[in-house]
Amino acid sequence: MTQNFSWLHRGVADIFPQPDNDSDAESLETRLANANSPLRVKLGIDPTGADIHLGHSIPVRKLRAFQDAGHTAVLIIGDFTARIGDPTGKSDVRRQLTEADVAQNAQTYLDQVRPILDFDTPGRLEVRYNSEWLSHLDLGKTLELLSTMTVGQMLAKEGFAERYKKENPIFLHEFLYPLMQGFDSVAVEADVELGGTDQKFNIAVGRDLQRHFNLKPQFGLLLPILIGTDGVQKMSKSLGNYVGLGEHPSQKYQKLQGVPDNLLSQYFELLTDSPLDSLPENPRDRQEFLAWEIVRQYHGEQSANEAKEAAKSGGKEGAVPEFSLAVVPQFPAKLSVILGSSGLCKSNAEGRRKIQEGGVRLDGVKITDADTSYQQPSELHGRVLQVGKNKFIRLIV
Amino acid sequence: MTQNFSWLHRGVADIFPQPDNDSDAESLETRLANANSPLRVKLGIDPTGADIHLGHSIPVRKLRAFQDAGHTAVLIIGDFTARIGDPTGKSDVRRQLTEADVAQNAQTYLDQVRPILDFDTPGRLEVRYNSEWLSHLDLGKTLELLSTMTVGQMLAKEGFAERYKKENPIFLHEFLYPLMQGFDSVAVEADVELGGTDQKFNIAVGRDLQRHFNLKPQFGLLLPILIGTDGVQKMSKSLGNYVGLGEHPSQKYQKLQGVPDNLLSQYFELLTDSPLDSLPENPRDRQEFLAWEIVRQYHGEQSANEAKEAAKSGGKEGAVPEFSLAVVPQFPAKLSVILGSSGLCKSNAEGRRKIQEGGVRLDGVKITDADTSYQQPSELHGRVLQVGKNKFIRLIV
Repeated sequence: MTQNFSWLHRGVADIFPQPDNDSDAESLETRLANANSPLRVKLGIDPTGADIHLGHSIPVRKLRAFQDAGHTAVLIIGDFTARIGDPTGKSDVRRQLTEADVAQNAQTYLDQVRPILDFDTPGRLEVRYNSEWLSHLDLGKTLELLSTMTVGQMLAKEGFAERYKKENPIFLHEFLYPLMQGFDSVAVEADVELGGTDQKFNIAVGRDLQRHFNLKPQFGLLLPILIGTDGVQKMSKSLGNYVGLGEHPSQKYQKLQGVPDNLLSQYFELLTDSPLDSLPENPRDRQEFLAWEIVRQYHGEQSANEAKEAAKSGGKEGAVPEFSLAVVPQFPAKLSVILGSSGLCKSNAEGRRKIQEGGVRLDGVKITDADTSYQQPSELHGRVLQVGKNKFIRLIV
Repeated sequence: MTQNFSWLHRGVADIFPQPDNDSDAESLETRLANANSPLRVKLGIDPTGADIHLGHSIPVRKLRAFQDAGHTAVLIIGDFTARIGDPTGKSDVRRQLTEADVAQNAQTYLDQVRPILDFDTPGRLEVRYNSEWLSHLDLGKTLELLSTMTVGQMLAKEGFAERYKKENPIFLHEFLYPLMQGFDSVAVEADVELGGTDQKFNIAVGRDLQRHFNLKPQFGLLLPILIGTDGVQKMSKSLGNYVGLGEHPSQKYQKLQGVPDNLLSQYFELLTDSPLDSLPENPRDRQEFLAWEIVRQYHGEQSANEAKEAAKSGGKEGAVPEFSLAVVPQFPAKLSVILGSSGLCKSNAEGRRKIQEGGVRLDGVKITDADTSYQQPSELHGRVLQVGKNKFIRLIV
């Protein structure tokens, strides 16, 4: 009990349950201190998209902290729902993925979090696919899961409550998703589940189900949702205010050195291990140190130094070689043709193949449709095209 | 289209859908008239209890009418839910039954409806257990079933609506039961489903699911809920206002000759094939004819005549031999001992075995707990004890 749990509390929004002082219930700190064997710390991954950004890295970083304290990270790839898609057929987001899609997305995900997690120490990482148990869940068991909750409890969940009030349709199968996520905790016997603050309900459902199946209920550890580089909205690929883990060191550096002052301390707290009381005093120095430190985490010190140099000397364009789109024979142009003409690939056919293999990114976002094409060079001006891990060009008009 | 469908409409509360005059949708009559092969007419049976009464016989009689018109009766034994019981463990009604319980209840049910249905003509009867398809329903398919309905639609169902308004808990698994019943219609490809007027919602769910799975949706044919012999409440074993199909001819006769005048025409319409315009004019004659006619259906003309004679000559006690409980060695007395002492069974041990085999009834209600016992002879006075189909005694103090 004299252990130092600063690694646990750094940047955490909420840990639950928090026992009252007069309660004899265990706290997470007590459970960690008294653990005779590694605790199992769960983080669920949605493999419908593979590209992840710094916002996603926050629970992964906390997972690493648990690994470093000797515990087991249990990464759960939610392949079951991804492969089912949206049974109503009404949502583009939940389109049905093939087994191969899921495997590729999962691999891309793992590649991107490799710099964060400890993949090597035996017993520190377990990667599980939830189809392992969910695809064998029969109707009897499903009825049992459903019977643990009432309609009123489910409708109290944020999101459902508002939709029900506004008379927007809630389809019955949506009620099963929190229970499926909860059953994942039963299946892997999680001691702790990590998630964003929007996951409190689902993690609490996991606790209830573990209790129902006579397991010790897990703790929930909630982490803040990261605000994007615009300083206003949550970080999101679709809002363009993100820093992707798959991006080039120089891209990362440039985006991060522009992070608004009011976000800097949160970025340092959530995205680095730097002591918060010894950061540079000058705001500009703090921005540069943040950018350097994060690039260092993902690409090493040398790349961080290079990215810093490039940003200082070459201005905005940095270390990424430029390629003039004037060389492309004609527009509209297929992406595969741009890959072939630019020399990033040996031929248009190789470009096509690379896209299909999932090896091509634009601004860090993977493009998988080999027929992707662009109407105008202006659509692509300033964007970074990437093949594999190391080949980058910046497209210019 | 010149066919006579009076057999179809007799005693029916509702047939749906009813196409509007200007709609080109098919009516049930058209579907029947144009059928090139037998239609499949579904009736679901709940095997949690086995003893059935005249109220239950109404849809079975309509099923027979379909058989006589050349169609196939599909009796569905709902063994799946009976074997699961109530997953919340809160309901006594939905206690978990074993496979043997269900098989025995189903057999008792079939024995009782044997006089009503055509069991012999090839192709006229199909008995199916819904565990055949429900026990193999995986989570993906269950999600698909659930996705066909919204929370709002389900909460609009009578029963749910009131409970939700009163803030009585509705457990999530309850939402699956209408969908499971509906999926039965998909599995057996029902063209028509029969049920009481309380089944409209569930039958409509079956239509929606059939449409979802690209089948032609079934018609619903709803039959009234029978008022019991008290003339007030719906016929129910627990209210004591019932006539059980397993009861002795004389018991049936005596109960039915007391049916209140205001119920007589409904009883004739729903429980007999007698032409309604040529019934006896005198109310007493009508009562006696009803009693005779129903006994005749289940036990034949000779038994009906005997029951009538017994009622006229022997007064209330009828043709059932009496047995004085004074012969029982002592009270409290086990039922097995009463069976042994009375000579209905050769020994107390045989009595016990007969109870366990499901062959013993008191006032037509099966007793299956071999340890059933009674405190006082007065509890049993006037009641009819039965072993197998043909051995009856009336217990007296």
